[in-house]
Amino acid sequence: MRRRAITSRDVAERAGVSQASVSRAFTPGATLSPALRERIKKAAEELDYIPNSIASSLTRARTNTIALIIGDTDNPFYIHVLRAFLAALQARGQQALTFTVAPGATSDDAIRQVLRFRVDGIILTAAQVSTRVVSLCEDRGIPIILFNRYIPGADLPVVRCDNFGGGRLMAQALIAAGARSFALIKGDPMGTTSQDRAKGFFAGLAEAGLAAAAVTALEGGSTYNGALEAFSRAYGADDALPDAVFAVNDIMAMAAIDRFRHQLGRRVPEDVMVAGFDNLPEGARLPYRLTTLDQPVGKMVAETLALLDQRRSGEATERLVPSRLIWRDTVPGLAPAAAIPPPAPARSQS
Amino acid sequence: MRRRAITSRDVAERAGVSQASVSRAFTPGATLSPALRERIKKAAEELDYIPNSIASSLTRARTNTIALIIGDTDNPFYIHVLRAFLAALQARGQQALTFTVAPGATSDDAIRQVLRFRVDGIILTAAQVSTRVVSLCEDRGIPIILFNRYIPGADLPVVRCDNFGGGRLMAQALIAAGARSFALIKGDPMGTTSQDRAKGFFAGLAEAGLAAAAVTALEGGSTYNGALEAFSRAYGADDALPDAVFAVNDIMAMAAIDRFRHQLGRRVPEDVMVAGFDNLPEGARLPYRLTTLDQPVGKMVAETLALLDQRRSGEATERLVPSRLIWRDTVPGLAPAAAIPPPAPARSQS
Repeated sequence: MRRRAITSRDVAERAGVSQASVSRAFTPGATLSPALRERIKKAAEELDYIPNSIASSLTRARTNTIALIIGDTDNPFYIHVLRAFLAALQARGQQALTFTVAPGATSDDAIRQVLRFRVDGIILTAAQVSTRVVSLCEDRGIPIILFNRYIPGADLPVVRCDNFGGGRLMAQALIAAGARSFALIKGDPMGTTSQDRAKGFFAGLAEAGLAAAAVTALEGGSTYNGALEAFSRAYGADDALPDAVFAVNDIMAMAAIDRFRHQLGRRVPEDVMVAGFDNLPEGARLPYRLTTLDQPVGKMVAETLALLDQRRSGEATERLVPSRLIWRDTVPGLAPAAAIPPPAPARSQS
Repeated sequence: MRRRAITSRDVAERAGVSQASVSRAFTPGATLSPALRERIKKAAEELDYIPNSIASSLTRARTNTIALIIGDTDNPFYIHVLRAFLAALQARGQQALTFTVAPGATSDDAIRQVLRFRVDGIILTAAQVSTRVVSLCEDRGIPIILFNRYIPGADLPVVRCDNFGGGRLMAQALIAAGARSFALIKGDPMGTTSQDRAKGFFAGLAEAGLAAAAVTALEGGSTYNGALEAFSRAYGADDALPDAVFAVNDIMAMAAIDRFRHQLGRRVPEDVMVAGFDNLPEGARLPYRLTTLDQPVGKMVAETLALLDQRRSGEATERLVPSRLIWRDTVPGLAPAAAIPPPAPARSQS
């Protein structure tokens, strides 16, 4: 798979021409005799010479560049997503133009920056985008795929985890473990991911005959610090704890555990159960051993790139990937033995 | 700072020409009457129209694109570095082409991929690069800046933390805290960062009259799992522990704490002190409260971009940034009160 790097000098030497002629041979519109151009192209092919993509992209339809717009980088889950995309794109010989979007900001400015370049597609994990910017992309034939969120009113292809189903499943699991009172900590108020997990959780409680009044709702902003502050405000040393906490992502569940164990001296799960969503490697480590829902990042990344290949911009395609309960130590009792990952260090995380 | 996105259609409408004419006006070598070209350029200026960068880069020297080559993404420190670079580049209106390099692999293939594009510079945090690939970049006038590592024999500009000085400082701190026997866990064997921290640590011990025999050296590969395995092999339930562990990065120090506390039931720092390097937010959290050395990422990123602006490829410029001791709970006693960050949640990390 390794290639020796071939320069235009090598091509010039092999073709017996000047380096400037080689350059002209790969610049659209540049003057060069057809015979010379043919001789240079032949030498280039023999040497497997890769001309500069900026020149060659004017003659080819594709640039092999994908824009990744990442929000929520305070949540390690999206860092794992970024890593998975970078690895998958590189394996396909594609480049990633990477942008981050501040929490609460729209992706519009990032997409406008992207449009100054030629890209084959845009993968968007940040929450908001305006229909004006979506149509700018459509005008240029550049597909946008939404990763793990959707935008009501925008007919964009979506690859996402079954967040509603996961929230519902976790409600069932916590009820089965004996919980009857709950705290629910929510994330980005504009993010459909957080909203759907919360809705699924309430649906699961309602199906079991538990009223929404059994739930104390907190806002954690999807960050560790935001969640730690929310739990600190909600639960002091003398306060009764709920039977169980469901955090809509692992990083906030980790903050819950830290608040209860290290600041309040309470036991998890004996005094309070804690469950998350995402299955972060960090949550699998020994200080947490967090019960959570797994999002299959590899599968979701592969589905996203498959949709991009189809370049179906504007079609309301949705790929829904189920989540899976990962039983560890922060919810007691019910796990079938086979479902518990062994605590051996080498396997405790990916 | 917000711009309405202007398309070539808007320019065409304002100039009273076809969209194809606007396209030709911004394509070098395309046929168009000088009068028409002038009219279109004027309309474009009035509308603040941004032509496609791939076309315009053929007429401008700069593409405003920087390639970031990131190794070691298993170590969260480099994720924090990536985030800092993305934020700083975006604030400057620059794009980042991001590549990751597998542990142990060279950056050569990633750089060859980068060279298919036009970039204004390459920032390299991965360890290895061949002189052949360095000269390919020099031929094209593309500066490479090394971030927190150097390559012996390659005259490349470097921005790095004083890793040797940090290792030496930590040796002094642990000796002052009473340690006389040590475990040192090293990271990437090819990385100068890990090597220099270890060398500085040995130098600090030697200055205090302690022989290298006081140190058990372990290899952790710079990852949490690698370090947990190394500590598991080195220290079982019945083994005597060293007075102190120095991990050349925080993620391995966190593995040390987890091994001692959660698998062996030992106390940190009473039974064994643990210190790291990097000052990760993760290491500041309540289950760890890790004593460590701070690398000033923001300052290092700013220095790197300043060097890039100077485009001094090939000059052996080095910017050395000092590290700073962060006293927390995993090394006892000596901290001057003012130097201890308060344990309040909101301040326990950045």
